[in-house]
Order: sequence, then C-alpha cells, then structure tokens
Amino acid sequence: MGPHPAVAAIRLAVRRVLHDILTDHHSTTDATSHERPPSPLVLVACSGGADSMALASALAFEAPKLGIRAGGVTVDHGLQPGSDLRADEVVLRLRELGLDPVLATAVTVGREGGPEAAARDARYGALDDAADRHGAAAILLGHTRDDQAETVLLGLARGSGIRSLSGMAAVSGAGGRYRRPFLQLDRQTARKACMAQSLPVWDDPHNTDPAYTRSRLRHEGLPALEKALGKGVVEALARTAQLSRDDADALDAWAGQAEAAVRDNTGLLECAKLYALPPAVRRRILRRAAIEAGAPAGSLFARHIEEIDRLITGWRGQGAINLPGKVVAQRQGGRLVIRQG
Amino acid sequence: MGPHPAVAAIRLAVRRVLHDILTDHHSTTDATSHERPPSPLVLVACSGGADSMALASALAFEAPKLGIRAGGVTVDHGLQPGSDLRADEVVLRLRELGLDPVLATAVTVGREGGPEAAARDARYGALDDAADRHGAAAILLGHTRDDQAETVLLGLARGSGIRSLSGMAAVSGAGGRYRRPFLQLDRQTARKACMAQSLPVWDDPHNTDPAYTRSRLRHEGLPALEKALGKGVVEALARTAQLSRDDADALDAWAGQAEAAVRDNTGLLECAKLYALPPAVRRRILRRAAIEAGAPAGSLFARHIEEIDRLITGWRGQGAINLPGKVVAQRQGGRLVIRQG
Repeated sequence: MGPHPAVAAIRLAVRRVLHDILTDHHSTTDATSHERPPSPLVLVACSGGADSMALASALAFEAPKLGIRAGGVTVDHGLQPGSDLRADEVVLRLRELGLDPVLATAVTVGREGGPEAAARDARYGALDDAADRHGAAAILLGHTRDDQAETVLLGLARGSGIRSLSGMAAVSGAGGRYRRPFLQLDRQTARKACMAQSLPVWDDPHNTDPAYTRSRLRHEGLPALEKALGKGVVEALARTAQLSRDDADALDAWAGQAEAAVRDNTGLLECAKLYALPPAVRRRILRRAAIEAGAPAGSLFARHIEEIDRLITGWRGQGAINLPGKVVAQRQGGRLVIRQG
Repeated sequence: MGPHPAVAAIRLAVRRVLHDILTDHHSTTDATSHERPPSPLVLVACSGGADSMALASALAFEAPKLGIRAGGVTVDHGLQPGSDLRADEVVLRLRELGLDPVLATAVTVGREGGPEAAARDARYGALDDAADRHGAAAILLGHTRDDQAETVLLGLARGSGIRSLSGMAAVSGAGGRYRRPFLQLDRQTARKACMAQSLPVWDDPHNTDPAYTRSRLRHEGLPALEKALGKGVVEALARTAQLSRDDADALDAWAGQAEAAVRDNTGLLECAKLYALPPAVRRRILRRAAIEAGAPAGSLFARHIEEIDRLITGWRGQGAINLPGKVVAQRQGGRLVIRQG
C-alpha cells in the first residue's frame, strides 16, 4: 500500500525541486576535480505550521534517496510571548524527522514598511545568514497555491500593474537559492499530509488575527470571492501570477533594450523617440529612469509615471514634476531630464 | 450657483468625450466640400437605470453647446414581463430630456455563451443597427468604474492572462463607435446626479439577483474584498485594467512582429526560433497560430497553450495534441504543424 495521496503529493512536489537543485549543483561543481563532489545541503524554513511541517517531512523523506543532506531552520521573530519556546519545539520536531543540522535563529523585527514587511525582511535576512553559514545549496519555503492567490490579490489592491500581480516566484533570491515546491499545491493537501503522518502542527494566531490584511483576505475576502465566482478562483489567481510574471519579464526586457535607442549621445531621453514607443514600454523606461535618478521604487506609483508620461504625450509646456526621493522630471528642448533636485 | 458636484462631474466626463468625437468627426469629414458638414449625431444607450439616465442627462445638456445632435436608444431584451412597457417609459423620459431621435428596439436573446453573454450580444447588435440606420457618429455607454472593477474580477476568475484583466475599453467597436465616458467615475456619482436632477431611475432586478455572477460579485464579493483590502480596491482594479490593456497591446504587437521571423519559407513555425523567444511572446504566437488554424478563441485555454508550448520547451517525442475546434498541433522535423485534423 502506498502513502496517503496527500503525502504522495507533497513528496512528488519536493522531489521535482530537489532534482532541479541537483542539476544546478552539479553544473556549478568543478568538473575537472577528481574528488567526489560534496553532497549538497538543502534547508527547509519551518515555522511549525502545517505547510512548512509538511515540507520538512517530505524533504526528510526524499533528500536521502538523492544523496542530499536535509537540514532545517526556524526563525523566532520574538513577536509573541513564548516564541522562543515555540522555536525550541520546532527544532525538536525537525530533529525527530531526521533533519541535520537544525537551527533556531532569533531576529529583531523592525518597523519599516509595516509589520508584515518588517517581519519578512528580518526572516529572509536570518535565512540568508543560515544558508551562508552552512553552505546550503537551497532553502525550501512552504508557500502554497493559496498563499500565492492571496499575494496576487494583495498586488491587485495596489493597482500598480502586472508585476505586482505576479506573486511569488517558484525560484527566487540570490542565485535562485529560495525554492517554493508547494506553489502549485493547495493548503488543504499540506494539512492532510501532516494529519496522515501524525505530525503535530502549530496554528500561528497571526494567521487568524483580523488586524492583518492577509488574514482578513484569507478568512473573509477570498471565501466571498469564491462564493461569487466559483471554486476555481484560487487556481485562476495562481495561474494569473505565472502569466503576469512572464508578461512582465518580457516587457522589462523590451524596455531594457529600447532604452538605449531612445537616449541621445549625451544620455538624455529623447521625447520624440519615446513618443513612438508603445505606452507599456515607454512607461517602463520612465519608471527605470526615475529609479535610476534616485526615486525609491516602493514610493513610485502609477500616477507618478502617468504624470511624467504626459510630458511626452500631452505636452503643453507644463513645469517640472516632483517625484519621491526629491527627484525632479522636466522636459527641456525635446529631451526629458530626470534627476535629483 | 453652479450645478451639484455630481452633475458637474458627469457633464465634464461627457464633454471630454464629445470633444474627442468632434475631433474625429471633423478629420473624417470631406475637407474639400464647400457645404457645411452636417452636425454629428451621438446616441446614448439607456436602460433607464441610474448610470445610463445620468449619461443621457449629461449628453442632453452638453451636446447642443457643441453643435452635436443627441439621440437615445433603449433595448428591450424581452427577458422580464412588462419589459416592453419599461422600454416605452424610457423612450418617454429620454424625449423629456430633449433627445431626438429616440428609439426603442426589441431583441431576441439567444443562449450562446450563457445568459449574460447572449443578452450582451443581442444588445450590441441592436445598438449597431440603430447607429447604422441613423448614421450616428458614436454611441455612449454608461459603464462606470465599478462596472470596470467587476469586469476585471470576472476576468481574473478565468485565469487566462492579462488580456482578460483589461476590462472594457474607453473606446471600442468598429471605428471606435462605442464610448464609455463614465469609466473613471463611480456608480455613486451617477446615482447622486440623477437624484440632484430629480430623474427617476429604474433598478433592474437582475442587478440584485444572486443567480447572476456579476450581481453576486457586486453585492458580496467586492464588498468583502474592500473590507479586507481597504476602500481603494475599485480604483486599483480600474487602474489594473488600463495598465493590463496597454501591456497586452504591446505584447500582441511584439508577437505579431516576431511571428513572421519564426516561420520558415513554407510558412511553418520553426521550433528553435520559437524557443529563443520570451515565453510570453512565444505563447502568444502559439495562440494566434491555433486560432488561425480554426480553434475557437473562447475555447482555447491557458492549459492548451502550455501543452503546445511543451512541444518546444519540453520536447521528448510526445504525440499530437488535440485542441478545440478539431485542431491538432504536432512537432515534425523541428517544425510545429498546427492544422484542422
């Protein structure tokens, strides 16, 4: 008798990603060396919740079969009383699964960008450190298709275009070290896999706290949307993420190539040449130019880019435009000058 | 004392669109003729609901000042008992506003594509006929920013990419005859403008009938999403529509240009050349090729295109792929052959 279908599903998802990691690992290992390449280490980032416990269990099962060492990291964000004890418990559970090394790392969460963004920054910093210290080839993250759907809706609420609809990437971070094996798997499958394997899971109270946007989205927004639009919404949002990512990548590449052609020999952007480009490409070039001049990407909204764009498409002698980061955009003699004022 | 702010807002929105229509009209009128060009006719499509009644009132007010003739059409879909009497009443109200000509036209709604799509097809057919018969330069439609937000969410639920996120265009139809002056205005403003002008409005029971997806979205889905994500959701969705439309247009243009370069001299698609393109561009070329071969666009889903794409990116000798409309895609000697089987 084979494993429970949910367990089979999580293992298959992890196996696929481990194969990719092995391929990448072998292609970067020195081929002229006569020594046997060291077996790569893959870490799982684990909060003790169902998604990442399922991921840890699948990694513990699959890695040895492929000659991969499996380890784990849990991050103590210090945001809830007793979070250190919780981290110790996760360490214990990961060791019970046979992972080695298993690390707990405590971080201090700042305030920049709001509570969720600050916690995320601290977490990824700690994970990067752990991977560097142990020479890990990859870090697995437990984000599911449901997380992806929520991320797309959060991006939609910004209304800043298709890049923010593209959610989380299956492969991300420096050198593609972060991998998300469960991005096409639903949350329910991860939970079932934990139950089938009698793995205790911890439900983070933040996930049900209506003070958090993501939690409201998960427990109210998405269910209401499913009720109105049908059960396929989560899958449709995840597919939208993938398609939007590819589209955004292609348009960024186009803008990158077009940019050189619209600059004069002093490096200034020529308005007539910008005018001839499709609006989608032109606006991307304007955004890049504003960021290059010092405007912080996170404070640069669609309306800023639209205002710069009107210097080209709706020119009637308007004055300089103030952008975030004290950057100023103005039109002078058929050229666009964007610089810190 | 000026008009109520809501009335000022609807009039401004209509004035802008009428200016555009005049500009287009004059540029297409025979400039060598010595006769004075006839004043153009603009029709408003009116259901008697708040959005289109507000639109009719603004058209009646603004058109004469610009030398434009203002008329109206109401379409009787015959879907509710007494819909003919309702149409007569709308005709009366439009005449009271001073519109001339005012037409009521009855249609028979089929079943193709579901009740909402069938009603829409019948309606646009009738509007096109009315415009042709009276030589109208344009037909104004009362869609608001809220309708646009709903349309984006409906597109999102299909999960078929950014074209379906791009909602309704401000200008559409043959020769750009359809215009949507209220696409950046909220529904509440239209309703307030009716109240301020003491215009009676009719609330279509379909709009609150939970049997209709759009109605569920309007009364449950969107409010829940706003509760989770904040009040700016409708605006963000409308902005997403505009950005997605521009992006989709640019990528379609790219695919159109790239397509010629990836065909061999017998017109077949070369797999190696397709492989070198960005996935977003390649998939658009594959989609176009499938439609050209006879696959109905509406039945062609992302998963079909992905399957064709794997003939290029994941070639392992797989067999022919069956597509809707009896179209078959297969790889033969490094070429992609897509044709009706």
